[in-house]
Amino acid sequence: MANEFKHLVLVKFKEDVVVEDIIKGLEKLVQGMDIVKSFVWGKDVESSEMLTQGYTHAIIMTFNSKEEYKTFANQPHHVEFGATFASVIDKAVLLDFPAISVKAPT
Amino acid sequence: MANEFKHLVLVKFKEDVVVEDIIKGLEKLVQGMDIVKSFVWGKDVESSEMLTQGYTHAIIMTFNSKEEYKTFANQPHHVEFGATFASVIDKAVLLDFPAISVKAPT
Repeated sequence: MANEFKHLVLVKFKEDVVVEDIIKGLEKLVQGMDIVKSFVWGKDVESSEMLTQGYTHAIIMTFNSKEEYKTFANQPHHVEFGATFASVIDKAVLLDFPAISVKAPT
Repeated sequence: MANEFKHLVLVKFKEDVVVEDIIKGLEKLVQGMDIVKSFVWGKDVESSEMLTQGYTHAIIMTFNSKEEYKTFANQPHHVEFGATFASVIDKAVLLDFPAISVKAPT
């Protein structure tokens, strides 16, 4: 079986940004796209800034394959969202990788 | 239902580190611990260094709750692994967060 493909984004938002609004925009974006298999996000509650490097939020999207991720990434709504997103972030890290599952829920 | 809790680590390893050996050590660590619900990792294949900030690998572990994550984190084998891990990395980002699932596989 081919590996799932993950699109991972860590973000530090600019001050005064209403993160909930950004997330709602993302929700809207992915809800209509069957190609996005799962979408999970969260705000760090645990690590010291030394460990988080100032990043506060993580976004993880899962696709069936790299090809489906690329289809998503090039989709006009995603490109448009990317431009909005770029304007509200202080910094971000993006990693895109075939996910190797060592242990999965039984 | 309570949110799952995720432990996310992005890493840039030192040169000459055999990443597979480190991952095998991690596999061994989590395989014996029922408290670790899932463990997925991957190596970036897509993003430009401008977007990855030099990070190459992502590790995602999922727990049933923050409490179970903390039990894992304080477990002697994990603490021991952490010391080894610190010696092989150039830099890392750690985020620990209750995972909000907007969209899940049907």
